[in-house]
Amino acid sequence: MKRFFSVDDVSNLDELVNDAILTKKKPLNKSELGKGKTLGLVFLNSSLRTRLSTIKAAQNLGIKTLTLNAKQEAWLWEFEDGSIMNTNTVEHIKDAANVLSQYCDVIGLRCFAGLENKEDDVSEKIYSLFEKYATVPLISLESATLHPFQSLADCITIKENLSANKKPKIVLTWAPHIKSIPHAVANSFAQWMNRTDYDFVITHPEGYELDAKFTQNAIIEYDQKKALQDADFVYIKNWSSFKNYGKIISVKEDWMLTNKKLEKTNNAKIMHCLPVRRNIEVSDEVLDCKNSLIYEQANNRTFAAQIILEKIIESNEKS
Amino acid sequence: MKRFFSVDDVSNLDELVNDAILTKKKPLNKSELGKGKTLGLVFLNSSLRTRLSTIKAAQNLGIKTLTLNAKQEAWLWEFEDGSIMNTNTVEHIKDAANVLSQYCDVIGLRCFAGLENKEDDVSEKIYSLFEKYATVPLISLESATLHPFQSLADCITIKENLSANKKPKIVLTWAPHIKSIPHAVANSFAQWMNRTDYDFVITHPEGYELDAKFTQNAIIEYDQKKALQDADFVYIKNWSSFKNYGKIISVKEDWMLTNKKLEKTNNAKIMHCLPVRRNIEVSDEVLDCKNSLIYEQANNRTFAAQIILEKIIESNEKS
Amino acid sequence: MKRFFSVDDVSNLDELVNDAILTKKKPLNKSELGKGKTLGLVFLNSSLRTRLSTIKAAQNLGIKTLTLNAKQEAWLWEFEDGSIMNTNTVEHIKDAANVLSQYCDVIGLRCFAGLENKEDDVSEKIYSLFEKYATVPLISLESATLHPFQSLADCITIKENLSANKKPKIVLTWAPHIKSIPHAVANSFAQWMNRTDYDFVITHPEGYELDAKFTQNAIIEYDQKKALQDADFVYIKNWSSFKNYGKIISVKEDWMLTNKKLEKTNNAKIMHCLPVRRNIEVSDEVLDCKNSLIYEQANNRTFAAQIILEKIIESNEKS
Repeated sequence: MKRFFSVDDVSNLDELVNDAILTKKKPLNKSELGKGKTLGLVFLNSSLRTRLSTIKAAQNLGIKTLTLNAKQEAWLWEFEDGSIMNTNTVEHIKDAANVLSQYCDVIGLRCFAGLENKEDDVSEKIYSLFEKYATVPLISLESATLHPFQSLADCITIKENLSANKKPKIVLTWAPHIKSIPHAVANSFAQWMNRTDYDFVITHPEGYELDAKFTQNAIIEYDQKKALQDADFVYIKNWSSFKNYGKIISVKEDWMLTNKKLEKTNNAKIMHCLPVRRNIEVSDEVLDCKNSLIYEQANNRTFAAQIILEKIIESNEKS
Repeated sequence: MKRFFSVDDVSNLDELVNDAILTKKKPLNKSELGKGKTLGLVFLNSSLRTRLSTIKAAQNLGIKTLTLNAKQEAWLWEFEDGSIMNTNTVEHIKDAANVLSQYCDVIGLRCFAGLENKEDDVSEKIYSLFEKYATVPLISLESATLHPFQSLADCITIKENLSANKKPKIVLTWAPHIKSIPHAVANSFAQWMNRTDYDFVITHPEGYELDAKFTQNAIIEYDQKKALQDADFVYIKNWSSFKNYGKIISVKEDWMLTNKKLEKTNNAKIMHCLPVRRNIEVSDEVLDCKNSLIYEQANNRTFAAQIILEKIIESNEKS
Repeated sequence: MKRFFSVDDVSNLDELVNDAILTKKKPLNKSELGKGKTLGLVFLNSSLRTRLSTIKAAQNLGIKTLTLNAKQEAWLWEFEDGSIMNTNTVEHIKDAANVLSQYCDVIGLRCFAGLENKEDDVSEKIYSLFEKYATVPLISLESATLHPFQSLADCITIKENLSANKKPKIVLTWAPHIKSIPHAVANSFAQWMNRTDYDFVITHPEGYELDAKFTQNAIIEYDQKKALQDADFVYIKNWSSFKNYGKIISVKEDWMLTNKKLEKTNNAKIMHCLPVRRNIEVSDEVLDCKNSLIYEQANNRTFAAQIILEKIIESNEKS
């Protein structure tokens, strides 16, 4: 494995999930693998789970980490190739990526969608520039359109909670929010679900269609009630409009998930990537119920990161 | 030991102090104890000594650390249970505590008193919520009302500087300041002193009485001069009014500690938790005199943290 | 080695550079040297290269690190001895230096020139105060007037790129900028070049003379074109006026380095300490050409830091 940006970098998803579950059982089994290796973690945005779980994964593998809150601890980056740098940006991403590559064997980058320039976000301008100039493997800690570690952790969590002998119905439901939120988690979950043989349904109000590049042939159901029927897993997430890019479109119905709405599911397990706006996106009763997997998803972030770091280091050693 | 919030979590203070002094002599003696263990350090407020000494203690024990400046690096936390999160808070402390527990074997939390809502501070609202939702042992890096690592380090420092065969007189004296300062260090010092057999006197201007819950039967002497008479140790600290909560009450006399004021002491040792407003709380001449223990107190923070981490890990392994 | 502030702390520069080049070949050769040692890294200013390369160097040597972004994570420091601390500063540098010395075997400090008070900067007020009060060896992560790790990395980079049998001509050329920039990198490069037997020329517009304390007998050539003639290495850097302290003086000619200007050099290698304002200080074509050493300079920061840490630890163990 030479990079980890999306599900397309995974050759065998089922095997990867199984390997992660084995890693979870014996997390210190390869604690010497990363000896002498350095992982750089570069944050252009806030992070709790990603920051801590990825450092923990590295620690479990004996990899040293170098963490950089780029804006606060270093310099404001320039993202235009060829630009005359006479404004407020101090260092070109080209130089930052090249320099960080001198100190690291692998680099993780977090760069959220700005939600202001659709083309920049859709083209993954920042992530692509960094990867273009980095000379070591790059792993995504969430980019403008995707959040692969979250999705891998979600796949692990679902696998651990499958009922025997039944193909599960997985529903991704849009949820209300008071701020404009990027599409990365939703896109990514759709992309990874499309690589499984699970029944996968997306439900959201009209106007909230995700980028078809990621949803592909997934079933879109505008009626949340219908969508939730017989669901085994319900994944709750807000996102802003993609068509009316980055905007919040007013919605008549109440899309907040409650226990009442879950009655017609198949005793569904509840998933959310966190952080969650409680009692706006989902009610407390749902998040805190016995079927809630939200903390196990967070826990599995460690093993998602660990298995990917393992694959990258092992594949680089072979090469 | 399952938690470390106050002196009430210590079964035998004298033994604990002695163990810390032994640890100080051979700090790397148990450098394998923490193998495979992770300590999370969560800061809702600034920190120098606590941050560095606790990380150093963990390093001495072979414990990995995950540090989080929660507000700057992650998200603003919500502290109201059941709240509809439609304002500026992004993640509920319930979720943060649960998630951090996934990555850590022990968590340290710093959450200062806000000094705006007395009931919230007195009830330790934030610390209690975090501890309620965390699923691993929690240690206090200073909470609204107490600062146990500071007090343990102070006890170590006093023990190291006792004269043989004499019960020492310890005086905690209020000092002037230009800002409203929390009561945690003063409360905590009183609480820990009350668990020793030392003679303990608190002196402060009227109106600056500390919460009786912590001072208990300690002697309160409003006349600083009288209080200092024959003192062996003088602990200097400012705090705001507790009665007139968080307010600065004007004081006629000059309470700043100077060499002149120390003349009637028994050649007293000088203590302060730092940071100190020089020449406001205490004069340079006092802080920098040969009797000053302020840097040794800071040094002993490492061994205070180390002995507590040791006890917590050892007790969890037994369980 | 008991400190690392300038080239004056280096007894044999040629030997030091050779040792660093050996270290680069086997960076993990002394990975046990730092066992039980702690390096503190204190930043009063932003840092990317210095932060990461110094931590990496420590990791290579098995030294633990404690990193502090002093302003953001701890308290605002007071720099006046004897001051009555009744304004916005919370902790005296005297106390910070003494306290940090309790936790660290070596401390690195970054404190840029403020460019507002020439005397404070020239006298290295902040660095000197910290060193005065620290009780362990101090190393400079860039101070008001010098940047020794950068210069050592530059010496390593030049040595690695020397042509056999020819004494190189090294040219330090001033470059345009839109902000007032400190003199540290330029001063330091001059100081270190003056300790080699290379031909060393400094070129800049009139009014941009550096402090003669550092340039000493170096040739100053106001005509950039003449200076560049037959150059083997061209080091590009902006700095503000020293005479008209910290000011930007308008310059008629275009001093930005381009390929055109390099035609008369001896196929010169290109150097810059980074970050660089592209197409303001230097054109993209120059920075990205095959002769550019800018990323190798950044890489060599690790080995510069590593050899110095090695010398300091070894010399302290002997003492």
